[in-house]
Amino acid sequence: MGDVCLVIGAGAGIGGHVGKRFAADGYHAALCRRSDQDGLDRMVAEIEEKGGSASGHLVNAIAENALEELIADVETHIGPIKTVVYNLGAQIGNRALSDTGLKVFERGWRMGTQGVFRIASTLFPLMEQRGGGTMLVTSATSAVRGNAGQHSHAAAMGGRRMLCQSLNAEFAAKNIHVAHILIDSGVNAPDTLGKMMGEENFEKLLDAKGRGKDGLMEPSAIADTYYHIAHQHRSAWTFELDMRAFSDIAWWNHPLNLNI
Amino acid sequence: MGDVCLVIGAGAGIGGHVGKRFAADGYHAALCRRSDQDGLDRMVAEIEEKGGSASGHLVNAIAENALEELIADVETHIGPIKTVVYNLGAQIGNRALSDTGLKVFERGWRMGTQGVFRIASTLFPLMEQRGGGTMLVTSATSAVRGNAGQHSHAAAMGGRRMLCQSLNAEFAAKNIHVAHILIDSGVNAPDTLGKMMGEENFEKLLDAKGRGKDGLMEPSAIADTYYHIAHQHRSAWTFELDMRAFSDIAWWNHPLNLNI
Amino acid sequence: MGDVCLVIGAGAGIGGHVGKRFAADGYHAALCRRSDQDGLDRMVAEIEEKGGSASGHLVNAIAENALEELIADVETHIGPIKTVVYNLGAQIGNRALSDTGLKVFERGWRMGTQGVFRIASTLFPLMEQRGGGTMLVTSATSAVRGNAGQHSHAAAMGGRRMLCQSLNAEFAAKNIHVAHILIDSGVNAPDTLGKMMGEENFEKLLDAKGRGKDGLMEPSAIADTYYHIAHQHRSAWTFELDMRAFSDIAWWNHPLNLNI
Amino acid sequence: MGDVCLVIGAGAGIGGHVGKRFAADGYHAALCRRSDQDGLDRMVAEIEEKGGSASGHLVNAIAENALEELIADVETHIGPIKTVVYNLGAQIGNRALSDTGLKVFERGWRMGTQGVFRIASTLFPLMEQRGGGTMLVTSATSAVRGNAGQHSHAAAMGGRRMLCQSLNAEFAAKNIHVAHILIDSGVNAPDTLGKMMGEENFEKLLDAKGRGKDGLMEPSAIADTYYHIAHQHRSAWTFELDMRAFSDIAWWNHPLNLNI
Repeated sequence: MGDVCLVIGAGAGIGGHVGKRFAADGYHAALCRRSDQDGLDRMVAEIEEKGGSASGHLVNAIAENALEELIADVETHIGPIKTVVYNLGAQIGNRALSDTGLKVFERGWRMGTQGVFRIASTLFPLMEQRGGGTMLVTSATSAVRGNAGQHSHAAAMGGRRMLCQSLNAEFAAKNIHVAHILIDSGVNAPDTLGKMMGEENFEKLLDAKGRGKDGLMEPSAIADTYYHIAHQHRSAWTFELDMRAFSDIAWWNHPLNLNI
Repeated sequence: MGDVCLVIGAGAGIGGHVGKRFAADGYHAALCRRSDQDGLDRMVAEIEEKGGSASGHLVNAIAENALEELIADVETHIGPIKTVVYNLGAQIGNRALSDTGLKVFERGWRMGTQGVFRIASTLFPLMEQRGGGTMLVTSATSAVRGNAGQHSHAAAMGGRRMLCQSLNAEFAAKNIHVAHILIDSGVNAPDTLGKMMGEENFEKLLDAKGRGKDGLMEPSAIADTYYHIAHQHRSAWTFELDMRAFSDIAWWNHPLNLNI
Repeated sequence: MGDVCLVIGAGAGIGGHVGKRFAADGYHAALCRRSDQDGLDRMVAEIEEKGGSASGHLVNAIAENALEELIADVETHIGPIKTVVYNLGAQIGNRALSDTGLKVFERGWRMGTQGVFRIASTLFPLMEQRGGGTMLVTSATSAVRGNAGQHSHAAAMGGRRMLCQSLNAEFAAKNIHVAHILIDSGVNAPDTLGKMMGEENFEKLLDAKGRGKDGLMEPSAIADTYYHIAHQHRSAWTFELDMRAFSDIAWWNHPLNLNI
Repeated sequence: MGDVCLVIGAGAGIGGHVGKRFAADGYHAALCRRSDQDGLDRMVAEIEEKGGSASGHLVNAIAENALEELIADVETHIGPIKTVVYNLGAQIGNRALSDTGLKVFERGWRMGTQGVFRIASTLFPLMEQRGGGTMLVTSATSAVRGNAGQHSHAAAMGGRRMLCQSLNAEFAAKNIHVAHILIDSGVNAPDTLGKMMGEENFEKLLDAKGRGKDGLMEPSAIADTYYHIAHQHRSAWTFELDMRAFSDIAWWNHPLNLNI
């Protein structure tokens, strides 16, 4: 079997498509998400139908030892993880400070920052022994600027970015590549953006920007760049990049970001 | 009595001097630190000898409800807090990822990010009722770039900065001013930098850069700028600034930062 | 006579008020602007009426040798320049690329970037001989992000900021302090913002945000911070800071900036 | 014939390899450099031997009308330019301010900033008529931080980056993609880095970091990413990215950058 690509947060958006993209080139895609066994099964089946290799893993990433056990499980029963994709968001929509309790704030940190730390702490020693590996981290504009109502999300993502830089400072020379990928437009993903907006609003958005207009990011297009970044020659690695729909306005010129 | 300035992290460095600076202009300085009742008493006595008003509060900031109770205590028994100075660092020196356990990483977040959130959640509603207030947050280069061995610190400080921006986005228009102050040189503070380096190394550093050479930041000089920022006219607030000794090299040109 | 503060771009906004502020504390204010001898004379008279010292200099800053000769003139006939304030903007309003000719683009660079270089090249050697000095540079959000229609301005301001950082890297240790001050709200200045918007629109803006609402930056308030920065202890210099009206939205959350 | 890829600055490093990479996938590579007709001819021959299409153009980019005429020439005699690669550096090594004359400073701006503006002004209207196009801009850490001795280079590159952002703000929605690519390590290019360092030092560097160690950036590896960026789906464009050798230290942790 080929190398393993573990995707943490493999829904119908970026995560799932990255899994499919890697599977299409011979990787085993170990797809991990919190819920929806049926959806997960369908994704695995879809990859297998095309001749690829995949497995589904239902995991609550922020539960104690969950990520650590997932990695041990995949390494033992499937194979050595060559690429891990950390695709968990921590967006909870805009909430005034008074509506952002301590538990919510901590949960944001667990999803946004601590999870990256736990993955790296568990997996990088194995990668180092094997001579290298890759971690692709989906991120958001909240990693580079705060915003009203984004107390939890921005704190979590700001920590995420600085952690990725610190990981690179220690591990890049050990041939472990961490890429921080800032996604700055809404993604055409019914089960994340669609859920957050509600079906009706999402349909309106699709009419306005999607459906051939290319104003919503196609997760399959994003996945192509994830794949490219993971396969750059090590003399020319990219550590930070942004991605945005051509017709969208950059976050620093923008009043509103649906997918912050 | 005058307005209250609450200093979280009032040691012999920035925190203590900011307390003295505000007390010299008529504020009551409520000085909070984790340990050393004697040192705290001396600081209070020093302020009172000069005709100022001060109180000392031993508090373990990351203990449950500690910051919340401190604020309630000061508000009830001393007076309304007009300015709060968040001066807790989260620096633990350089540690490889393998030496940075989950607890250490979480503690960094509690000191570095969560504490700011708890102060704001508790105090800003009171400030808003009273028509305004100020929060001065001491920060570090780890808020803007990661570095080897800084996994915990950089994640904590990156979160701190994005949180400060989010707080401003919600509260500046309500007349609550949050300033993020990036300290980019070693501070002439025996009980923080001195402790971290050890006495002998700190003495060498003082010979090389301090003692009239002005290459270590004088905390009293830093305090002057804290005071200025807290008293800017609200049509012209500063939200982010850096501070550095004149003879030092900026973090982006620099191989090493002792006081990151 | 006291030290000299040379203000390049001394209109009725930031420049003029910074001149007055320094004059109020004993500096001679050498006020330089391109046109309006009467306005310049009134400013000088106003300072002198309050017991201060000032002089007026009509100079087209981008003319060949103009800045160089101005400095020679002030140094010879008035006294050594201790502080120089570079307050020339390069804003020309929003212009599509097709409306931004080569000459306009070059003029933006001359005002925005080259002028700072010429001042530093001419004055810093003198300051270095004398043991130090200060350069305060008014800047804009275009120094940190581009925007539609800002091709000329953003290129000029981006160059300005990187030049200020390079100057500090060479000269801070020689006791010459360069501060880059990012002004991120509209300034209550009839002869710059007022002129750009037209009288009627400016009146509307004053009704909406000025006139006691403090939503437009008061140049006298800005001047207080300029003065503070110029007098920081050299162990604790600020090199970059932003300023914004309390009720305004930061540039990274903002659709429109009138005073970019 | 296929689409045209015009490379401004097509030496033996990034520029030449990008030309070859595009030619390998069916583009006509129009290779432009200032001097060395023989080298240019060899490059064209090398592409043609592999069945590709190429042409060589000796042009002094900063001469009046040179870039404008080059574009007209290529558009008329070869074909519509789909991708333009702006690969002119403005690095002149570290020079104290006193050794950086006005002419040198202006030349830096002409190479670093104005050239991008001229290309965009001339070519983007044509691209807009044709429904789109791509501009890949090689950049440097001097675009994001100043440094001692980098007065000219940093001012030029800071302007370059802000200009790229402004171009995107106007043209991305018109299907013209501008990517700002920050190259943060030395490139294995004898005729740029090699020339700057001298042959002997460059040989030492090759021994230390190149020759199988992958510590110098391979221009062919860089070219792969240029090609990828130019062919991203427009719903998921990357506008800014960094590239660095795996074993190198990021600019913000780094004392020295040979290829700034």
